Amino acid sequence: MKNLLIAQSGGPTAAINATLIGALTVAEISDGVDKVYGALNGIQGVLEERFIELNNITNDTMTMKALIHTPAAALGSCRFKLDKREQYEEIIAILRKYDISYFIYIGGNDSMDTVWKLSSYCEENGIDDIFIMGAPKTIDNDLEEIDHCPGFGSAAKYIATTFAELERDISVYCTEAVTIVEVMGRNSGWLTAASVLSRLNGNIGPSLIYLCESEFSNDQFIEDVKEKLKEHKGIIIAVSEGIKHANGKYVTEEMQSGTTDMFGHAAIAGAARYLERLVKEKIGCKVRSIELSLMQRASTHIASETDIMESRMLGMKALQCALEGKSGEMASIKRTSSDTYALQFLSVPIEKVANREKKVPASWINQRGNDVTDEMIQYLYPLIQGELNISYNKGIPQHLVLNSNKSQ
Amino acid sequence: MKNLLIAQSGGPTAAINATLIGALTVAEISDGVDKVYGALNGIQGVLEERFIELNNITNDTMTMKALIHTPAAALGSCRFKLDKREQYEEIIAILRKYDISYFIYIGGNDSMDTVWKLSSYCEENGIDDIFIMGAPKTIDNDLEEIDHCPGFGSAAKYIATTFAELERDISVYCTEAVTIVEVMGRNSGWLTAASVLSRLNGNIGPSLIYLCESEFSNDQFIEDVKEKLKEHKGIIIAVSEGIKHANGKYVTEEMQSGTTDMFGHAAIAGAARYLERLVKEKIGCKVRSIELSLMQRASTHIASETDIMESRMLGMKALQCALEGKSGEMASIKRTSSDTYALQFLSVPIEKVANREKKVPASWINQRGNDVTDEMIQYLYPLIQGELNISYNKGIPQHLVLNSNKSQ
Repeated sequence: MKNLLIAQSGGPTAAINATLIGALTVAEISDGVDKVYGALNGIQGVLEERFIELNNITNDTMTMKALIHTPAAALGSCRFKLDKREQYEEIIAILRKYDISYFIYIGGNDSMDTVWKLSSYCEENGIDDIFIMGAPKTIDNDLEEIDHCPGFGSAAKYIATTFAELERDISVYCTEAVTIVEVMGRNSGWLTAASVLSRLNGNIGPSLIYLCESEFSNDQFIEDVKEKLKEHKGIIIAVSEGIKHANGKYVTEEMQSGTTDMFGHAAIAGAARYLERLVKEKIGCKVRSIELSLMQRASTHIASETDIMESRMLGMKALQCALEGKSGEMASIKRTSSDTYALQFLSVPIEKVANREKKVPASWINQRGNDVTDEMIQYLYPLIQGELNISYNKGIPQHLVLNSNKSQ
Repeated sequence: MKNLLIAQSGGPTAAINATLIGALTVAEISDGVDKVYGALNGIQGVLEERFIELNNITNDTMTMKALIHTPAAALGSCRFKLDKREQYEEIIAILRKYDISYFIYIGGNDSMDTVWKLSSYCEENGIDDIFIMGAPKTIDNDLEEIDHCPGFGSAAKYIATTFAELERDISVYCTEAVTIVEVMGRNSGWLTAASVLSRLNGNIGPSLIYLCESEFSNDQFIEDVKEKLKEHKGIIIAVSEGIKHANGKYVTEEMQSGTTDMFGHAAIAGAARYLERLVKEKIGCKVRSIELSLMQRASTHIASETDIMESRMLGMKALQCALEGKSGEMASIKRTSSDTYALQFLSVPIEKVANREKKVPASWINQRGNDVTDEMIQYLYPLIQGELNISYNKGIPQHLVLNSNKSQ
């Protein structure tokens, strides 16, 4: 028996189940795999032996489709970092118990750390019949050694569409108004940059875009807003949740000092809310802040077809690599041509990915730090192309639930 | 010459342009209408004679489709209440100047006040060759004399879908967590009630639903949350922005007293944020608040086909009534059968609609005030059925822009 174990980890995305399906379909067509187990709640579920069988999913195409179109990790997730040698031993013993030869872990840079540690442990201990591969996933697009990350394209499409729709909404009145939209990203501004794509259809798009890679100055921001209000009465501004002042502190940290909530505790608020108050104080026009919150990573109903198809390919590639005897690597994408958007699916050493973060290059941000360059648009553009044929049941999208969160 | 004037007013919806198209198509097929004018920014634009010609839109089917699928009022909107007799005189003079015999005003209860005042003025002054009709629109679903309001069904579909997607997102971890989602509605809870529709596909749906029609008690809320956390580790709660305590004050007013922002001003925050802090203080588990903000009224990409088609019918009905000599009425929908969802399109006297608000009946809210009844589900269910065949261009929905918001 050569069994397969798959688990998912890290923050949810719209595409992580497509990667799961990718691995499942390769398992289905391969003679090398017998049983397929899914661990519930990532590596934590492996340690607790909370396994479900997944072979039946590929038996029904409509079930597969429903799973691909279900947002967030269908197997559940965890925030759990391996840090003890005994844990590695324990995991290997569990894999042996279930005759697991292949383990695919789908996740972000923390999860790749798990893949790295486990595969290193195997190598150091001469375990050569268990193959552990990483499959990437993160809406943040901050993984190294990959052109772009699964899940990012769908979030980017949601963001671009939402900015286009918000632009229509804020354009109906003829009074001066500023709308500040906060996008996820504490350390990398890729998602915020994606707001620029709302300009593709002739929209104005965000009048100003502030990524967390640039130093944020309150004074320059107010100058920028005043300038843009001369061009349009209603303007939209995109801002990363993680923008920082020159002193290296998040702008949101600054707000928390000295402000209190109804219980007398320090008030916690986001970057957009901070800027909302700044505009109210310094300009005094109508101003509103919006957080795209969890919707930007959960809105599979408007996923990018490109993203979903590539995410699936990466799940396929991860298992294929394991079947070919690779271990301690991550399935990856290389862009071989930007002109025609050609890709190559390959695998990369896991130690080059684990615990690292890819930031937006400075050359893709304009000089003043309030917009992105054409190179950024060219890079992002292909990632949001295409739409899914979502199945709606009773008026809402059909999802497949593998993991309930019932209290014990 | 018998010309037609159309204007839009009030808050944006995903369906208000479908109503515009409805009127335009009846103008196109009718011999009774010559030129079609659109006033920019509602009645304010009428007073300022900011008119654009709209006849060319029906010449191109793809342009019509793009306009139907464009969120928010394509002609712009205003918040402007007529309050002087001279304004009525001025408007009638302008209508005469442009040979306008028919005026269709698309909007909510404030806009119906404008229709009422203008048509009454005409009647009192023996003006019998100008016909003024209202076409309804509001995501709030709070208009009287109509079964449900255009724009509401699309917002409801967005809300139901978003709750379903958020449920998948919050279900991935096995830690106790409360997610509180604030839905629009200061005085009526219809939109918040629509969150219940996320249960249709076998989802748990919101574990608790608080409408602004019920008195809100902090203590009962905390009890409710503790109870629901025993059933599920991750729960979602739907709450109207306008929930009030027994003293009649919005819960958000309570928060504002005594809290300050970074500039020492009273901090303003929403109902969900208030409850987030309450849970943090009284229960201490992980808690997050989300506002669906403008997305719930602007997300035409996930509009309800039923809503869009009915909205169009209402625009058609409004003009047809005017052509048949009616004035001072509003196009409306009567549900003639709930079993098979049969409708009748009719017109109702405007004075029964203007300045009134329809609230959720007490009998459609459960005894404890933390959920809605099956009658509510039965009422809401048909309104979110069907999806549009949205045209995407370059990866984002194609919109049609009639009105720019360039600064002068």
